[in-house]
Amino acid sequence: MTGPRLTPLVSGLPATVPFVGPETQERANGRPFLARIGANESVFGPSPRVIEAMAAAAPEAWMYGDPEAYDLRAALARFHGVPMEAIVAGEGIDGLLGYLVRLLVAEGDAVVTSDGAYPTFNYHVAGFGGVLHKVPYSGDSEDPDALVAKAAETGAKLIYFANPDNPMGSCHDAGTVTRMIAAVPDGCLLALDEAYGDTAPGGTLPPLDPEDRRVIRLRTFSKAYGLAGMRVGYAVGHPDLIAAFNRVRNHFGLGRVAQAAALAALADQGYLTDTVARIAASRERITTIAKGLGLAPLPSATNFVTIDCGGTGDRARALIAELGKRGIFVRMPFTPPQDRCIRISCGTETDLDRLEAVLPEALASLR
Amino acid sequence: MTGPRLTPLVSGLPATVPFVGPETQERANGRPFLARIGANESVFGPSPRVIEAMAAAAPEAWMYGDPEAYDLRAALARFHGVPMEAIVAGEGIDGLLGYLVRLLVAEGDAVVTSDGAYPTFNYHVAGFGGVLHKVPYSGDSEDPDALVAKAAETGAKLIYFANPDNPMGSCHDAGTVTRMIAAVPDGCLLALDEAYGDTAPGGTLPPLDPEDRRVIRLRTFSKAYGLAGMRVGYAVGHPDLIAAFNRVRNHFGLGRVAQAAALAALADQGYLTDTVARIAASRERITTIAKGLGLAPLPSATNFVTIDCGGTGDRARALIAELGKRGIFVRMPFTPPQDRCIRISCGTETDLDRLEAVLPEALASLR
Repeated sequence: MTGPRLTPLVSGLPATVPFVGPETQERANGRPFLARIGANESVFGPSPRVIEAMAAAAPEAWMYGDPEAYDLRAALARFHGVPMEAIVAGEGIDGLLGYLVRLLVAEGDAVVTSDGAYPTFNYHVAGFGGVLHKVPYSGDSEDPDALVAKAAETGAKLIYFANPDNPMGSCHDAGTVTRMIAAVPDGCLLALDEAYGDTAPGGTLPPLDPEDRRVIRLRTFSKAYGLAGMRVGYAVGHPDLIAAFNRVRNHFGLGRVAQAAALAALADQGYLTDTVARIAASRERITTIAKGLGLAPLPSATNFVTIDCGGTGDRARALIAELGKRGIFVRMPFTPPQDRCIRISCGTETDLDRLEAVLPEALASLR
Repeated sequence: MTGPRLTPLVSGLPATVPFVGPETQERANGRPFLARIGANESVFGPSPRVIEAMAAAAPEAWMYGDPEAYDLRAALARFHGVPMEAIVAGEGIDGLLGYLVRLLVAEGDAVVTSDGAYPTFNYHVAGFGGVLHKVPYSGDSEDPDALVAKAAETGAKLIYFANPDNPMGSCHDAGTVTRMIAAVPDGCLLALDEAYGDTAPGGTLPPLDPEDRRVIRLRTFSKAYGLAGMRVGYAVGHPDLIAAFNRVRNHFGLGRVAQAAALAALADQGYLTDTVARIAASRERITTIAKGLGLAPLPSATNFVTIDCGGTGDRARALIAELGKRGIFVRMPFTPPQDRCIRISCGTETDLDRLEAVLPEALASLR
């Protein structure tokens, strides 16, 4: 008996996954991490009002969420000053990126990204048979000119560009991004991932313009809003493109409690402001700790600090392992030369006390 | 400027959606429904222990859910007596069906279902370019022999079969289903949707057998467990097939609170038993109300009762509209001859008091 027949495309996909969760490592280690500062989550948590809203919504969890996510999209439309027809909400930016790639990328279609940028995007492109063309980072930043030039050269249908960037924490100013958007070749779309936009300095995010067919903007409640576990992201783009998501998305995929949580989070901008300040202070302390040990932390516009450890990828990987043994969950860039760095997410004071206590001995153990 | 270039497949997809949510109708009506008994949700809600577990998990919503859903899958494995490698959890059966179709169905591949069965499955098949072959219901039941014969005739890669059935509420016994599985052609997979398995009479569900490559079983927390709004379903199948989901699924798509809710729901089997009894009593009362008005309710193995209104689809659609005007949200089968019926989900006593009060005048208004 042959069993089910996978498509040729799926048969050729690797069985590897974009990210291993910290829980998998905890099970392997036989104990939980003492500091969970590796997945760029917000240790400061969601707003107390969000927690209340979720508890209040729990008894209503027997009802499917509104498949139009009307109230959430209407609130986002008011917040951003765009029509709600320009907004689609979905199961995190990961889910929306999957739908977006599916909309545009058939087998053999060209797609452009940076070598070392978001692995989950690459996973989706491979999953739909796209051909990925990668351009190198310029220093520790994504290179807008190179991305656009590669798209023109390859006739790409889609460019991925994160601003601020993950895993390096760098960012370009709004003027640079605006010029990049204007240079996107006709027939190509720029997927502008602004997951870390809430923590970026003023002047990083260009104004939203849903009339512009060259760009789609991706935002999330998973980072500064502290709701990674609820899976709510959204995209802002031209209404024609946004409407196309309805042809492929899981219409009831955004649950009722998730919608209630996102709505409450958006309404509590004071908490977001406080969180962004706590993130900035935490970034500052991580930077100080790293400098005190002779490491070279990079400037960050995000909720993490990427630290140049001054060696090879092997050395950084060894450092991650040593930190793991000491109960600290952190990650690192996957690709050279960025993999000379480790990436530490902002933590609570307690998290950073632990980091400060064990980082010296973790470094010493490498010698 | 041409704007983004959708794939040829997506360009040809209709903009229609499988289901319009009750919230959309409420916005159009300018008022909420008084009884929400149209989407086969469980009005009896989730267990109080589940509500507690969700409230307790809310402050942890800053963490991504475990991408392996290890604890949930381990609990399901113990519950069902199968290896956890035979289980994939995902964003409801809808989400899992989308992944399953993507794994197996390339453009032009044949797929078999019943004419009038689950529209969301058809939506996924169209979305990946499959060619859907439909066999008629036999009376008001899906026809296992006809489904298998059509699969053999068309060389189908996938058969969809719901047992118990939605929208008719009918079911086949385990022996019939077991014979159907044995008859699935080599190279074809039976997607056996058992969303309503929890409310079916004993002897409906064949034993789970993850060694059998011909079938994948789909279960959900959205129906009797009362968690439609959390989007948690799972599939049980051969570990090779289950592993293939990891090549395409949204690994972090199942949120942390959703996993906590499902785990607590599974642990409270006493509540499930009570709910199933309440569903049975509600089914009984809907049946009595319908008979008292000269209608012909069908036997039901589900959490809804499908009622033959003895006329055309137009008459049933008019009745749905009249009930809607009176604050009652119900739905009906989409396809003739099943569309002579309306489908009423089990409700609370209050819901059914309202139904009993307005159904006579809604019927009278049709004359």
